[in-house]
Parts: sequence; structure tokens; C-alpha cells
Amino acid sequence: MSTPVFDPPALESGALRFTPLGGLGEVGRNMAMYEFGGKILIVDCGVLFPEEHQPGVDLILPDMDPLRDRLDDVVGLVLTHGHEDHIGAVPYLLRMRADIPIYGSKLTLALISAKLKEHRITPNTHLVREGETLDVGPFGLEFVAVNHSIPDALAVAIRTDAGLVLHTGDFKMDQLPLDGRLTDLRAFARLGEEGVDLFLPDSTNADVPGFTPTERDIGPVIDQVMSKTTGRVIVASFASHVHRVQQVIDAAHANGRRVALLGRSMVRNMTIAQQLGYLEVPAGTLVDYKKSHDIPDNEIVYMSTGSQGEPMAVLSRMANLDHVIEPGEGDTVILASSLIPGNENAVYRVIDGLTKLGANVVHKANAKVHVSGHAAAGELLYCYNILRPKNVIPVHGEFRHLTASAQLAHQTGIAEAATFIIENGTSIDLKDGEAWASGQLDLGFVYVDGSSVGTITDADLKDRRVLGEEGFVSVIVVMDSKTGRIITGPEIHARGVAEDEGVFDKIKPKIIAALEEAAEKGVRDNHALSQTMRRTIGRWVGQRLRRRPMIVPLVIEA
Amino acid sequence: MSTPVFDPPALESGALRFTPLGGLGEVGRNMAMYEFGGKILIVDCGVLFPEEHQPGVDLILPDMDPLRDRLDDVVGLVLTHGHEDHIGAVPYLLRMRADIPIYGSKLTLALISAKLKEHRITPNTHLVREGETLDVGPFGLEFVAVNHSIPDALAVAIRTDAGLVLHTGDFKMDQLPLDGRLTDLRAFARLGEEGVDLFLPDSTNADVPGFTPTERDIGPVIDQVMSKTTGRVIVASFASHVHRVQQVIDAAHANGRRVALLGRSMVRNMTIAQQLGYLEVPAGTLVDYKKSHDIPDNEIVYMSTGSQGEPMAVLSRMANLDHVIEPGEGDTVILASSLIPGNENAVYRVIDGLTKLGANVVHKANAKVHVSGHAAAGELLYCYNILRPKNVIPVHGEFRHLTASAQLAHQTGIAEAATFIIENGTSIDLKDGEAWASGQLDLGFVYVDGSSVGTITDADLKDRRVLGEEGFVSVIVVMDSKTGRIITGPEIHARGVAEDEGVFDKIKPKIIAALEEAAEKGVRDNHALSQTMRRTIGRWVGQRLRRRPMIVPLVIEA
Repeated sequence: MSTPVFDPPALESGALRFTPLGGLGEVGRNMAMYEFGGKILIVDCGVLFPEEHQPGVDLILPDMDPLRDRLDDVVGLVLTHGHEDHIGAVPYLLRMRADIPIYGSKLTLALISAKLKEHRITPNTHLVREGETLDVGPFGLEFVAVNHSIPDALAVAIRTDAGLVLHTGDFKMDQLPLDGRLTDLRAFARLGEEGVDLFLPDSTNADVPGFTPTERDIGPVIDQVMSKTTGRVIVASFASHVHRVQQVIDAAHANGRRVALLGRSMVRNMTIAQQLGYLEVPAGTLVDYKKSHDIPDNEIVYMSTGSQGEPMAVLSRMANLDHVIEPGEGDTVILASSLIPGNENAVYRVIDGLTKLGANVVHKANAKVHVSGHAAAGELLYCYNILRPKNVIPVHGEFRHLTASAQLAHQTGIAEAATFIIENGTSIDLKDGEAWASGQLDLGFVYVDGSSVGTITDADLKDRRVLGEEGFVSVIVVMDSKTGRIITGPEIHARGVAEDEGVFDKIKPKIIAALEEAAEKGVRDNHALSQTMRRTIGRWVGQRLRRRPMIVPLVIEA
Repeated sequence: MSTPVFDPPALESGALRFTPLGGLGEVGRNMAMYEFGGKILIVDCGVLFPEEHQPGVDLILPDMDPLRDRLDDVVGLVLTHGHEDHIGAVPYLLRMRADIPIYGSKLTLALISAKLKEHRITPNTHLVREGETLDVGPFGLEFVAVNHSIPDALAVAIRTDAGLVLHTGDFKMDQLPLDGRLTDLRAFARLGEEGVDLFLPDSTNADVPGFTPTERDIGPVIDQVMSKTTGRVIVASFASHVHRVQQVIDAAHANGRRVALLGRSMVRNMTIAQQLGYLEVPAGTLVDYKKSHDIPDNEIVYMSTGSQGEPMAVLSRMANLDHVIEPGEGDTVILASSLIPGNENAVYRVIDGLTKLGANVVHKANAKVHVSGHAAAGELLYCYNILRPKNVIPVHGEFRHLTASAQLAHQTGIAEAATFIIENGTSIDLKDGEAWASGQLDLGFVYVDGSSVGTITDADLKDRRVLGEEGFVSVIVVMDSKTGRIITGPEIHARGVAEDEGVFDKIKPKIIAALEEAAEKGVRDNHALSQTMRRTIGRWVGQRLRRRPMIVPLVIEA
């Protein structure tokens, strides 16, 4: 981020401060901090999945540093819905303070509780419902039903003396939702009448023209594919997409097929959804996959994870014949999910693998088997018009999405000066209907890498990128600590470099000569001698191999 | 590839053998080998660009091993057009035998000659024109005009006593091509009347329904964007896309703007195209970019490379403010190109960077600024129907593309048994209108990596992947070669690992203990002692850090 860092001033009395700790300029690790009257309300606490320039990283967390000294001021954490990019970092927040009160809907709390159980944390949860109002410290909260690709999502209106804020969380405006639970546009209208001082809309699809199609369109396509398939049907989707799984179950039932769930997260989430009544399963339709092998091919559907080509997930393993279920001629595989940018190669490898095995592969590019969970431009216009907010901060998106959302706001008559395209760490203060940027914190990426949280640095990642592209050459000499003469070496070893190790024999005399020359000049410092070796071999490798591997020189005294 | 390897039998007298050395099951490194009467004709010789699981690799070549002992039998190399995936590997073929006669159209030969000049090779070229027939050894060649995203592309019909083969090269069927040069469907009809025994169609877009829109649709969009832009216009596209550059030049001219070309390959290719008359430039329209800085913003267009987000190309550098030209408010950037799968993250990073600088970014997703260069399903149906070939080998595509093309063939009445979905190295023999699979060679990937060709192995690439994901931990001890006692060490160094090096102090006593225990058991072999160190530290790192870095143990005797 290029913005200069400047600490915000102490918060004015009667003003509200919003500071995003994650989720702006990226799709993921959503976390917002609201401050008023010395107290803090947090909305969402999610993870971001790494890209290829962050190799080996498992997860990326919001930078929670601004909370570290103010944990006792936190009065609550609101979770808008149960997706990983909104709840995935909660265990790491609770490691700082375990008893932060968590507010969320029934399904959201069930999913976060299951996650926290795996982390051996018992959370302090409070169930809330759409339409409900509740005071949490100085924050008056009102929860509003919104429609998304997971049931039971909520927007939250936040009332303080500074004004009325509406934070949508993720949402879309499906007008024929599968569960009949619409985004509550009547509530939006009422809030608009009251006067929304600050609106923070999900802007992920703000650059997509028109309207997100209804989820209901997908059912008939799945049904038709199933009815045409003579063998097994395998459907892959996100493990949290209850509505999509519902449509698969319904289509299976209509086609005289039973459904076996595959993948740990799929089984866990759908068990929760079924227990809580979000997933309706006709009696006898679900079957344990261990008992599914006796079922004839034309009477079974496997519902699995792995729609993004993740190498360890069920679908990739099937494509590699590394799973009990081996798709083949007569079988159909449906990828009923989006294709998240960056995953294309992995997904197409899976599609190719399945096609080679003889399976028919149906996916977004050749059939209507997925719709997005986010409001497109047309829907956002409805929201801007019905709310007529005084100020807008587009959230939940890359910079281009935030910009597109701001442009929609302008088109509905909201002034440019009242529209804030900001970065993580920018604080916006609100008072008397006026909003202004008050500061810019210096926030970073917090990497979860194996068991370590926050210890891996960008320098480490740069090392990994160099190692991954070029490999390394290590060069070691053992020197007599008294005389400074070479006892053994140089020993040269290379990994990930496009040559036999024998090629390095040619450079050894040069290294010895360079070390002897340095010794003659009285250089005895190990670091300086290491640098001499690095320069000598680095230059030679650059010229000779036209590569720039990491050079790892080491002088050992004996 | 899962297919078992089986050597083809000696070629029957009067039969033709086709063996693809690259381009099947992939988009890239197209190279086909035709054998008849003891002679060999090669069609195309291109490169493949590496994917993320081939880190650090510069280029991938076809495996030319089957040619190594038969270079004197090669009677010619036909180049269908001037794209890198069809000509990029020619320098490596000519290193094996420099005087192979090369046949191609005017532009194709100019482009390959310029490339070979950089490799200091003077090729033995022979200009051919559409409609021309020519005997090359026992092969009777006829060249047929085809329309593609580069001018002067040719299909080649190959006549021998074994029958008539039609090899399309890359093509589409734009019915309103910019240069008026249609794919010669009349010639296809005539060949169909004569009887095509084997048809090898470009199948890259066989899974795209309908028809590829005409290139002509793009001009008005670019024109309109230019006319609306108050500042500079920057257009990025492929460096070989003469038609696209033509449209940019025309639109610039119509809008009173001059055009500066940016990027070495763009300047080289367009200079050639202009010299040969493929690019028509109104007088005074092109300007050297070094002289472009005095031109007012609303009178200049920059035509650059970097449409795929390549980090070193002009467009990425502009987005990072690492280029003389710094886009900003009022400027428009047009990405007039496809988005090749796998490049999404890089491209979106560039789009975001440019948007942050204030530029308006127009790309495939929000405007019609690109059409494909390959025939879609509807066009392929025309070809199958007008040719009615006896046998079909879909080429130029991933497995799913080849399958889709074969399905189109079946729909037009070609028998499944006469449609061959094959892999690189599969040989198909043709005689008396019958074709059959005769063998499967064991071909691999040949990696160009810096100055090395073919020396980097899949094991090296696996090393790079491990290093890139996990980094490495090296552990070194110096031992007395006589007593077997430790003189110095263990020294432990780590790179790309998420811990301070100090953390490894804790494991040193365990390593010493393990080495001493081995010594007591009489183990003196360096390799065995290295393995002892590897196991000890590897287990500890796995449990403690939950990571699997490469462990590099080294025992040095002194």
C-alpha cells in the first residue's frame, strides 16, 4: 500500500470511528473495528487464502495489532455469516482474549462453535435473530436478514449518538430465494427513512453488470443432468453451500438416487445444517458413503468438496484414481461452484483428468450450474437508491470492486466527497452526518504457516520464491581458526539447479584463489570470507548457467 | 500420461505415419512428424510456456528425440504461421541440423528469420504462397489460406500414395476478416470432393459453443474508448497481433492521436509487418516513444506488451510506476487480449494497480476488446461437413478440447473408430483410407532453463517446488576422519522457514547424541551419518513446526 501512515488523533467525543483490519483491497480476511465512547465493537473476523506469491502459507489473518492493548475495551464480536473469510480468524482473536462475547445467527454460531471446538476453545456466544435489537456496550445493534450463498446471513445496523451505520456483510438480492428468506429490503427502506449516515456494502460483484441470477435456476439443470446420466453422478461444490446441496438432494430424490457426502468439512457442515433444519433431507436419501458401494450406479450421487481443484480434496484424488470412487464411462461430474481466479489451472487439470477417465464433466463454462452469492451492480443500485446514505465506504473487494461500487453510488446521487475508497487500516470518523478520513495505521499480513502465526516474514517468502524459481547452491569451507588456512573444501552442493553437481568442480580453484587472496590481505572475518565466496560463485553461475540461484556460503572454523 | 509405451512396427510400404511430438494434451509446443517412403516432413516446431508447477523454467520444447538418429531423412519443415507455439523451438531443432529446408509464408519466414538471427543461425528458407503446390521429397504439398490472429497463416494439404491429409494449423473462419483474407473454404470443398483421408483440425476452441465473433467488432469499441478519453490511451496486446495493432492505429488516426510502440518484441514484429505490407500505417501516425513525451496527452496512444500481467513487461512496470510512462487520472488502459488461464492473478494485480493510479481500465470482462483466434464449435462443424474426412485426429488442445472436437466430428457422421483422441508420441498410420494407432513413444518435457536445454529434470523441479513451499534447513558437522569424533557443529541454517535460527539450538544436543550413538554402533559411513542427521532434525521440525522443509544434511571430514 502506497498511502503514507499517519496516526489518527484521539477520537472526538460523540464520534464513531471505523477501521477495517482486513477485507479492503482483497477478497478475504474481513474484519472491521468500530470505536465509540472508549469501547470497541468488532464485525467479522475472517481469513484470506494465500496466492502464488505467498508460497507455503496456510492462511492469512487480519493484522489485529491495533486491538492488542485494548482487548478489555472490546464489548463484542458480531459475525454476519458462517463463511471462512468472515469467521476463520476467530480462533486467533480468542487466543488473545477467550471470553469476547460473540453475536450471530443460529447457523453462524453452530459453525463457529464447531470450528472453535477443534481449537479447544469454548466460546461465549449469544444467539441473535433478524429483526432483533440489542445493546452491546454503547452500540445499539439491529440485525437485518440478508440473502447469501449460505443460510442465515445477517446485516447489522449500528446506532450510536454519532449516527446510524449499516454494515451489510455479504449479501445478494435473490428475489426467489430457495428458502424464501429475502434480503429485507423493507428494513433497508425503514433505515433509509430514518437516515443512514454511513453505509458499508459488500462490493465484490460491483463490477458485474446486471443482476445475479436466482439460485433456483440451477436446480432444473442439475435435475436434467442427473436424469440423463446412466452411471454415477458426482457433484462438487463448496462445503458450506447449503442451498446448493439442498438442490442436489432434491434432484437426487426426484431421480430415484441416494446421496453420499464426501469430505470432512462437507460432512461436518451438512450435519450441522441438517440438525438445525437448514437442510431438508427426504427420509432415506442420505447414505453413509461407506455403505454406498452396493448401490447401483444409476441410483447414487456423491456430493464432494474439491471444486477449486485443491490437490488434497476428494475431486482431485478421484481424477488421479487416488480415491475409492473411480469415475469412468457413463458417470457425470458436476462442478457446481464458481471458479475462483488463480485456480484455473488446477481446476482444468481436474476436468481433463476426469474427461480422460471417460466421465462427462459439466461445469460453469458449459452449463448453468453456479450463480454467485454477491449482489451485482443492478442490485447495488437498488440498495443505494432505497437507502440514500449520507456516506459510503464500499467494503469486501479488490480495489477495482470498491471503485466500481463507488461509481454506482455516484450514479445514484451520492457525492464523491462522501464516498470513501480506502485501504485496510484507514480510519473514518463519523459525527453529525459528516464522515472524514482521520488516520492510516500501518497494517501488514499475518501469515499462518504450519504451527507458527505471524513469525514468517515477507523476507522469508521472498527466500521461498527465489528457492522455488532457482534452487540454491551451497558452498562450504572448513578453515583452521588459528592459521586461516583451508582445511577442507570448498564443498559445493546444489538443489533445484539445472546441472550435475560435477559442473561446480570447475569453480573450486577460483574460490580457493579468492579466499587465499583475501587471506593475504589479512581478511579473517567469516562474514567477509563468506561474501567473497558468494560473489565468486554467484558471478560464475550467472554467466555460465544464466540463472540466479540462492547462493549459501558458509565458513566453518575448526 | 498413462498410456503404455509400445514401439511402432516398421512402417508398411505405401503407408504414411503421423506422430505428434508436442501440442496434444496441451496448448503449445506444436510439432508434428509425417513419415513416408523413409523420409520425414515436420510441420511446426513451437514452444510451450511453463505453468506454476514448473517453477523457474523459461520454455518447454517438444521432445525431439525420435528425430535424433534420422536427421538426414528430414526433407523439410513447414511452418503454418508465426506464433511462438509454432515456431519458438525452431532454433533448437536447427542446432541439431542447421540446413533443414523451411517452408512458410512471407510473414512467417520474416518472423522466424528475425528469431534465428538472434540465435546467430542463417536458415535455409523457401517462400510459399496460398494455392501453391510443391513436392518436398515424397510429400506433395498444397498450401491453403487460413484466417487466424496473425496474418499469412497457412493450412497444408499433404499428398502421398497413402492418401490426402489436411493439417489446418491454427485457424478460425472470420467471414469479415480485416484484411479480406478468408479461410479458403472453396479449397476445403475441393479437397473434400477429392477425398480427405485424414483431417487434423485446430481444436483449441472446440468446447466453445457458437462462432468466434469477427475481429472487425473490436475496432469501433477501441475507437469509442479513445474518443471518450481526455488523457493518454495505453493499449496492451500480444506482440504478434498485427490485426489488433492495425485497429489501434486506425482508431488513433481517426481520433487525431499518434501511436508509440513499446516493448522489444512489439517493435520488432510490427516493424517487420509494416515493411512487408501487413500493417498499414497512415503517414506520421507512428512515433518513436522517446519522442512522444512532448505530445499532448489527448494526442497519443501507447501500444505495449504485457497484456498477460508478465512482471517484466511494459504494462506491469507502468502499474508499479517502474516505467517512464506513469498512467494516472484521465488516462485509459485497454487490455485488448485474451486472459490466458493461469494468468488471472497477475492480470488482476495489474488492473488493480492501474485503477489505483486513477486510470480507467477497459478489458475483456467489461468491454468487447478481444476475440479469439481459433474456430469455435460452430465453425468446426462447417469444416467437418464440407470436408467429410475419412479419419480425424483433433490436434492443438488439452484433452477436453480434443474430446469436444471429436464429438463434433461424430455429430457430422464420422465414425468413432475413425476419430483418434491421442497423446504426444502416439503414431497413427494411414493407408488405403484406413487409419490405425501403431505405437506409443515415450516422450517427455524438454525444459529450457537459463542456458541449459534438457538437463533440468522433473526431480529438480520437485526440489524447487519443495524449496518454494517450505524452504530448507541445512545441518553440517565437521568430523575427524580418523577418530570419527565431531570437531565442529552441528551448524544449522535455515532459509524460507518460519522461525528464527535460534530455535534450532534446541535440537543440536539431540543430533550430537544421535551421531554419537551411531558412532558407538560403528557407523562411519558419511551417507549413513547424514541420514541420521536428516531423520533426527526432520522429525523434530515436523512435530515442532508442522512443516516439511527440505533437510540438507552434510558430514564433512577434516
